[in-house]
Amino acid sequence: MLPLMLTLPALRAAYAEGATPLDVIEEVIARRAALADPAVFISTVADDDLREAARAVMAEGPEGKPLWGVPFAVKDNIDVAGLPTTAACPAFAYDPAADAAVVARLRAAGAIVVGKTNLDQFATGLNGTRSPYGAPRSVFNADYVSGGSSSGSAVAVAAGLCCFALGTDTAGSGRVPAAFNNLVGIKPTPGRVPNTGVVPACRSVDVVTVFAGSVEDGVAVRRVMDGPDAGDPFSRQTVPAPLPPRPRIGVLAGAEREFYGNAEVEALYDAAIARAEALGAVVVPFDYAPFREAAALLYDGPWVAERLAAVEGFLETNAEDFDPTVRKIIEGAKGKTAVEAFRGRYRLEELRKAVAPVWEAVDMLLLPTAPTTHTVADMLADPVAKNSQFGRYTNFANLLGYAAIAVPAGFGASGLPGGVTLVGPAFSDDALAPFAAAMHAAAGCGMGKDRAAEVPPAPVPGVPEGMLAICVVGAHLTGMPLNRELTGPGGFLLREARTAPGYRLYALAGTVPPKPGMVFEPGFQGPGLAVEVWALPAAAFGAFVAAIPAPLGVGKVTLEDGAQVTGFLCEAHALAGAEEITRFGGWRAYRAAQS
Amino acid sequence: MLPLMLTLPALRAAYAEGATPLDVIEEVIARRAALADPAVFISTVADDDLREAARAVMAEGPEGKPLWGVPFAVKDNIDVAGLPTTAACPAFAYDPAADAAVVARLRAAGAIVVGKTNLDQFATGLNGTRSPYGAPRSVFNADYVSGGSSSGSAVAVAAGLCCFALGTDTAGSGRVPAAFNNLVGIKPTPGRVPNTGVVPACRSVDVVTVFAGSVEDGVAVRRVMDGPDAGDPFSRQTVPAPLPPRPRIGVLAGAEREFYGNAEVEALYDAAIARAEALGAVVVPFDYAPFREAAALLYDGPWVAERLAAVEGFLETNAEDFDPTVRKIIEGAKGKTAVEAFRGRYRLEELRKAVAPVWEAVDMLLLPTAPTTHTVADMLADPVAKNSQFGRYTNFANLLGYAAIAVPAGFGASGLPGGVTLVGPAFSDDALAPFAAAMHAAAGCGMGKDRAAEVPPAPVPGVPEGMLAICVVGAHLTGMPLNRELTGPGGFLLREARTAPGYRLYALAGTVPPKPGMVFEPGFQGPGLAVEVWALPAAAFGAFVAAIPAPLGVGKVTLEDGAQVTGFLCEAHALAGAEEITRFGGWRAYRAAQS
Repeated sequence: MLPLMLTLPALRAAYAEGATPLDVIEEVIARRAALADPAVFISTVADDDLREAARAVMAEGPEGKPLWGVPFAVKDNIDVAGLPTTAACPAFAYDPAADAAVVARLRAAGAIVVGKTNLDQFATGLNGTRSPYGAPRSVFNADYVSGGSSSGSAVAVAAGLCCFALGTDTAGSGRVPAAFNNLVGIKPTPGRVPNTGVVPACRSVDVVTVFAGSVEDGVAVRRVMDGPDAGDPFSRQTVPAPLPPRPRIGVLAGAEREFYGNAEVEALYDAAIARAEALGAVVVPFDYAPFREAAALLYDGPWVAERLAAVEGFLETNAEDFDPTVRKIIEGAKGKTAVEAFRGRYRLEELRKAVAPVWEAVDMLLLPTAPTTHTVADMLADPVAKNSQFGRYTNFANLLGYAAIAVPAGFGASGLPGGVTLVGPAFSDDALAPFAAAMHAAAGCGMGKDRAAEVPPAPVPGVPEGMLAICVVGAHLTGMPLNRELTGPGGFLLREARTAPGYRLYALAGTVPPKPGMVFEPGFQGPGLAVEVWALPAAAFGAFVAAIPAPLGVGKVTLEDGAQVTGFLCEAHALAGAEEITRFGGWRAYRAAQS
Repeated sequence: MLPLMLTLPALRAAYAEGATPLDVIEEVIARRAALADPAVFISTVADDDLREAARAVMAEGPEGKPLWGVPFAVKDNIDVAGLPTTAACPAFAYDPAADAAVVARLRAAGAIVVGKTNLDQFATGLNGTRSPYGAPRSVFNADYVSGGSSSGSAVAVAAGLCCFALGTDTAGSGRVPAAFNNLVGIKPTPGRVPNTGVVPACRSVDVVTVFAGSVEDGVAVRRVMDGPDAGDPFSRQTVPAPLPPRPRIGVLAGAEREFYGNAEVEALYDAAIARAEALGAVVVPFDYAPFREAAALLYDGPWVAERLAAVEGFLETNAEDFDPTVRKIIEGAKGKTAVEAFRGRYRLEELRKAVAPVWEAVDMLLLPTAPTTHTVADMLADPVAKNSQFGRYTNFANLLGYAAIAVPAGFGASGLPGGVTLVGPAFSDDALAPFAAAMHAAAGCGMGKDRAAEVPPAPVPGVPEGMLAICVVGAHLTGMPLNRELTGPGGFLLREARTAPGYRLYALAGTVPPKPGMVFEPGFQGPGLAVEVWALPAAAFGAFVAAIPAPLGVGKVTLEDGAQVTGFLCEAHALAGAEEITRFGGWRAYRAAQS
């Protein structure tokens, strides 16, 4: 009855048809009992406790619980009360007194924790082999790594053991495992979701992530986790950063295209670029070099000292309990000075300036999530160099404060998947989602282990958060003299439309540039007038309205489809002596007839 | 002919009456020749070179040059092409190839550099005695310190040797010397003005400041310096933060009131609080403790490593060339680790969260600029402890990213001045200015050495940058049901007003809450309608307008005085059948008559 991928729509459909959270949990129990990979979970909620949790959720009822009866897994560096937190280091384990802030929010929304997943120890790695609990494997080929550090979380979702799973991402740990398991990885802007109750990797740049089958599911989960928490001083209020519906997308060019010989992933990347263009994006090659330099700071620069700060006392007493590679990386910070820390910050700020011109030219970046993959055996043989290949296109994102969404990009002949990531400015998380969803749907590669699963179509984008819609009638239409007042401050065309029949249009006398005046007359049955609906950032909308000269103003305009939009109207007294031009059906047609 | 204080209005008046920049420069030359304090300048532009500079400015003419013919001094850690930069360390001196970015901008605006001023070496100090070039003295008593590190800059302005002078401020160096010399100190939000060409103290928190006679002068100078520069990656775009005209002002309370036994400065602080109340502010005692903890991070925490980063190579080879106190402070950073640096940052972020509730309760802080002062002899006898007293109320401001304006607060019986500082959130620089100017004017203590000088009255605040005005007519008036739609998002009343006579008012039928509709009729001679003009943040203005339901809208409303303001209008078709209530002269009077 339940499909392999336990998506939110699948669960909602099951609940609508009479299934209960207990039914879903029984299925989860059966599936995890049948799971072949022994390395996915570090600890699990016992079967009977899971049933108990399902009953508790049922007793509370679905009212006001957007994730009611939704099973999820939690990376084992995020606290869940009742299960130990190990960070994949048994000697480090502790029993948390409380849920991490994000877990508490998800549980309050009705979601059910099924277990704690394996990870590269202390979230230090991108491959999934650095754990005494074993190496989870790609769901498509058990010879290959799952990706890390959120290894178990990705496999748990891809194998249908839960609807979504939490990861954490410092260097790319919430994205790389998504690529290797045909999943979506939602990596919020750092600070957007709180880290209270999360074992730090690099506390100033860590962020909790979501693995899910679809962008829609991942964003729905992230919204439940959103918002500052008193326990995390780096968490902060969101200031939405809108993006246009037909984005300019930066793509790798020239020497910066590096796939370490993996032609399959390279081909999948090129196919994704072609899809982006087919979806209406403007593709812009850009210079990745300064982003790569920023990426290098994360391990080669002072930020590795944050990893040491997180475990310093434990390292002193328990050095032998560390994974040898992880220990070597963290101990590498021991000699670093405060002067080096500040110099690293100076360099990062210089690079932030260096990449600014790129963001003038593009709205988002489209990058390979990981440029190649490796077998577990190859990774263990060369654990640092091969791992750092995985981070080539991910390490910079959190240092520079960006949002990112990793989406599936199809499969190669080897049967292994590739992924691409859309990266946008701080707090563009929601704005990235529609295009990311469209890219996933267009890839036609299903989700997780189910390559034939139907991916939900991308939602029709409405007015983006932080923007306001304005209906323009005359000199602000596309191609008209004042259109730059909309495009200049970052506005974009949402749609062309027609007003309801009750509007009359007049050519105002003596206006420069020539302008029309539109008025509503109840009962009038005109042709309706051609208008455009634009989106403007809220502050720009305010400035735009404040600059409108009399006798024009804005009120509510009713469109043909009944929608009411803020739009241009004219004071009635100004129409005395003006020529009525309603019969043209719009300002553009009238102007064309004049010339 | 020229007054002692060479303010912008004084210079403009002189130029309007026919004086030339060369005349002003001759006066400057004469004054500096007569200067008793030998420690003010480290280097000066030679008399003939100054005359040459004046002639060059004259040849260019005043067109488009807001600081045309305005003499200024520059702290000697800021590059001026043609003069060495010493940072008060002769062995460190170099000949800069170019002006610092701020100096270049000021010169392009017509200002004339007269010389480089003394400072605490490497801007490490708040007292002015840590320099091999001698200790400048308070212009009011040569036994007393001038304050530092921008010691010479403050004395140069206070003694009438120039119109304004540049300082730098990390811990309080642009504010403390203002307090000790009866001056205004404009300390911009860090990043607002670029540090390109400035010898760093703590590069991530340094900011260039302005010493001037009045707030008006200081802000005018700062505006010329505003804006990012490619050479300073910490410089950034300004996002104006408006403040209400009747601010809630946080003042010291309880155990956090510390003046180190200086009852005179304490009394001046209390008098300033009383003045603030008399000027309409709401005084709110707040807990200074978390700010003090942030302040302590600057020297006791890892930020001192930035001072080491700035001079590390030079210190290795030239340790003996340092002022002993400065050397000891900077060498104190040698053992600090990168882990400590990150922990300091974590602590700062925690404190940023800890002070957030204060900023919910107040719009700005009113603090003593320095809680006490000392003689040069006492300072030299106890150079670290007494210096740190000076920074008690200043050290936190740059770490937390705030704007500040230091203003004179009058004189004690000793004949020494005290100062107070208004501190506001990031980018509230302009918003702080009107109240700061009013506080200065109300103190009645003149400016600089001229205790009788007339301080310009505070300008009437207009619509603050980043806000937009809206004229409300009905349910949004003060005390009416929808007024919270203005106060909720941070709006405030700018003024009560009356419309021009051409407006008619109608009571709209069936509106909840009851609402009027206002329309303009050319030629109509009504009583004019009572309205209120409010200021709203631009984004909130946008959201407010977008939420207005038909048949209301906004257009331009003409007021009694001819001003045109965005305001509520009504579509004409909605007035059919509505009762005209113009005769009441406004919605409030109509509603009163109804009840």
